[in-house]
Amino acid sequence: MPSFKIALLKGDGIGPEIVESAVKVLQKVGKLFGYDFILEEGLIGGIAIDKTGEPLPQETLELCLSSDAVLLGAVGGPKWDDLPTHKRPERGLLGIRKALDLYANLRPAKVYKPLVPSSPLKDHVVMGTDFIVVRELTGDVYYGEPRGIFKEGERRVGINTMRYTEDEIRRVVKKAFEIARGRRKKLTSVDKSNVLEVSALWREIVEEESKSYPDVQVEHLYVDNCAMQMIRRPSSFDVIVTGNIFGDILSDEAAVITGSLGMLPSASLGERYALYEPVHGSAPDIAGKGVANPIATILSASMMLRYSFNLKEASDAIDRAVELALERGYRTPDIYAEGTKKVGTQEMTEVIISLL
Amino acid sequence: MPSFKIALLKGDGIGPEIVESAVKVLQKVGKLFGYDFILEEGLIGGIAIDKTGEPLPQETLELCLSSDAVLLGAVGGPKWDDLPTHKRPERGLLGIRKALDLYANLRPAKVYKPLVPSSPLKDHVVMGTDFIVVRELTGDVYYGEPRGIFKEGERRVGINTMRYTEDEIRRVVKKAFEIARGRRKKLTSVDKSNVLEVSALWREIVEEESKSYPDVQVEHLYVDNCAMQMIRRPSSFDVIVTGNIFGDILSDEAAVITGSLGMLPSASLGERYALYEPVHGSAPDIAGKGVANPIATILSASMMLRYSFNLKEASDAIDRAVELALERGYRTPDIYAEGTKKVGTQEMTEVIISLL
Ligand SMILES: CC(C)[C@H](C(=O)O)[C@@H](O)C(=O)O
Ligand SMILES: CC(C)[C@H](C(=O)O)[C@@H](O)C(=O)O
Repeated sequence: MPSFKIALLKGDGIGPEIVESAVKVLQKVGKLFGYDFILEEGLIGGIAIDKTGEPLPQETLELCLSSDAVLLGAVGGPKWDDLPTHKRPERGLLGIRKALDLYANLRPAKVYKPLVPSSPLKDHVVMGTDFIVVRELTGDVYYGEPRGIFKEGERRVGINTMRYTEDEIRRVVKKAFEIARGRRKKLTSVDKSNVLEVSALWREIVEEESKSYPDVQVEHLYVDNCAMQMIRRPSSFDVIVTGNIFGDILSDEAAVITGSLGMLPSASLGERYALYEPVHGSAPDIAGKGVANPIATILSASMMLRYSFNLKEASDAIDRAVELALERGYRTPDIYAEGTKKVGTQEMTEVIISLL
Repeated sequence: MPSFKIALLKGDGIGPEIVESAVKVLQKVGKLFGYDFILEEGLIGGIAIDKTGEPLPQETLELCLSSDAVLLGAVGGPKWDDLPTHKRPERGLLGIRKALDLYANLRPAKVYKPLVPSSPLKDHVVMGTDFIVVRELTGDVYYGEPRGIFKEGERRVGINTMRYTEDEIRRVVKKAFEIARGRRKKLTSVDKSNVLEVSALWREIVEEESKSYPDVQVEHLYVDNCAMQMIRRPSSFDVIVTGNIFGDILSDEAAVITGSLGMLPSASLGERYALYEPVHGSAPDIAGKGVANPIATILSASMMLRYSFNLKEASDAIDRAVELALERGYRTPDIYAEGTKKVGTQEMTEVIISLL
């Protein structure tokens, strides 16, 4: 029986509950399709700070490096909000992305028909939206040096460095072209090249690479314009590729127009390693109440089966079960609307498992 | 008769047409209320490059420095798109902001009731939206050094520097608090302090300053979260304050949810100088066709009367005339909907003038 080792990093807030749901789904899928998933837990984020003093303990890192893939819940919460920037739970996330060299963050923004009414966009604007944001994840102003708060005479000055090498740009751009080639063959590259030299280099590399993908249609948008067009004509996008900080903003904007943040999975891919996590955060306000929507994490596990283990059939089965559960009217509170059946985390998980 | 000297920088694309419209409105207002507006033209942007080789000629700068306020149309277009970053029309804009020290960019995002149907957001989501983005305009990664495309061994690397001193943060934050105090007394400060030290300093200064404004309620949002909340609950915002690059993205996002980019004015204020311009760009595709919406520029002129010349009554009169024109069903093509009267730039201008 083929076996896969998965590192589970549940993290903070609703992280543990939703990862548990995804685990149940994985176990059922393993039984149905004949795979063995070996699950091992590691600490990350706030809970890791509490137990070890570090947001990303060495032990967790080693677990990830020795696993076939990582499934992560969420990190952070008000308890750790007053820590300085370099000691926060989020550092665990940034640390693991860098250590595993997970340079391509894939965030599908797909509108599920039954959820169109809960999108903040008008029905006719959002209908048919199905694109994916490919966000560079290991460079940019997130990691650039020098950085810090310094003294210039009597005044404090904050400094961060936006920085990309051409290799860093090229590999994520190639990845985005490949993904576009497997979809509707349209790539939108987003930058601020009318102001930033980093962006001018970005645009140059996209132009260079586009020669190797003549079948893919390329469009360049400034980031401010993209923030507008995503709201105006979301269904016109296929694949969007951009840097780390612009991608952070745009992928969250993309998430919310689908009307279902609790539904959205993500994959962070490198050459060797991969990490899967829901797009939403740790939602400390509803942690432990049994009402969190487990679907984003379940779909993240499905992406893991597809991208890391090449188990297309099993992944399809999960995606279908989720769509069926929605069609049958099951809703967690975050996506509830009149006339549907309100259920908690556990019941939603059981419904999905029963539909596999 | 009180007289005011205004520098007119028409710029590129639809710039000349829409500035002409605003000038006609100003002249009528001058007659009605008894003010003398002395208008003098200067070159900026692409047309300045074509005629002088510089996007911001010295002569233009001197004109602005000797005027009471600047009214700008728009800059840029495909003709100049292949120029390197530091030679583009947009440099003119960046140059003038810096030279006049226009550190606070005010962008009102107000939803006009008759235009709710043309917002991409659902009516009930967008209804009642009326906030203002205060964007810092003379610092951040727009101006930070070092910047450029360098060689590291064989590879190119792009570098820009995100940078804010505490004084730069403090003055724009104070301005935002003052504005909030004159409105609904709610200030949302936007940063990425969970990752960036620049943002950590930003948040610290906001906290410090908030002690002097105990009557104003302060909320902090991460920029990715703000990009979401602006779509989810736009009517909950009053004043948003943020840095230059985040403000660039968020103010354009704010603009588009109102459903009427062609309606939105902006003011860029320093201690001594001020510049007014529409939020929309130079729209080269419709330049010269007589269909551009002049309202954003007319309302920018109205902001000039209010903020620079303290002519509240005259400013109110313009704002009211614009609202009346909309209520009576007049629409330029960008905001046209069935059942309304489609008009061009000139007719819209005449209608507004007749309603003054
Ligand atoms: C928590 C934070 C550091 C992180 C980021 O900015 O990358 C988050 O917003 C995300 O998008 O995964
Ligand atoms: C044209 C460009 C340089 C400018 C900016 O980024 O500031 C524009 O987008 C704006 O918002 O006024």
